[in-house]
Amino acid sequence: MAKVIAMYKKPADVAAFEKRYFEGHAPLAKKIPGLRRYEVSSGPVNTPAGPSPYHLVAVLSFDSMAALQQGLGSPEGQATAADAMSFAAGIIDLLIMDTKEV
Amino acid sequence: MAKVIAMYKKPADVAAFEKRYFEGHAPLAKKIPGLRRYEVSSGPVNTPAGPSPYHLVAVLSFDSMAALQQGLGSPEGQATAADAMSFAAGIIDLLIMDTKEV
Repeated sequence: MAKVIAMYKKPADVAAFEKRYFEGHAPLAKKIPGLRRYEVSSGPVNTPAGPSPYHLVAVLSFDSMAALQQGLGSPEGQATAADAMSFAAGIIDLLIMDTKEV
Repeated sequence: MAKVIAMYKKPADVAAFEKRYFEGHAPLAKKIPGLRRYEVSSGPVNTPAGPSPYHLVAVLSFDSMAALQQGLGSPEGQATAADAMSFAAGIIDLLIMDTKEV
């Protein structure tokens, strides 16, 4: 498969961020063609030593890197990316990678 | 589900790291009780703007946070953690979180 991992640092206004993410952003992301699995952290994102720098982490899975790139390049993918930049530009870290099961 | 995301920054010796990870570490991690899915990046870990700080990212999925904690606390989980510290202490970033599908 291939994955996008979207990691959001702690927002200034947690309640507003959560509302924006789950009511505004997630419905857009769910429309990305080829998206096979969309998993979002529930509760704190920790490290073994305590809280992480991240408030929320999302893992979006696609069948392949080609499918991921096609999905992100689609109108729905571009709308999702533009939306993320509109409310989380300063706090989002993105990773994009091909993956295999081991 | 619940996930551990293990992110390894670029190692000094990439070939030695890859050998150690796939031949030494991954077989240990696979023995962690309750591990449902173990996905590892294949090829580069990028950001939308280019290479990320990470050389390799692993996503380990469990049925629940309770199962994850039980798995990490087991002898196999502790051996896996100790092994990671033995070859990647300075380069590993770990995230631990409960997740839900949206």
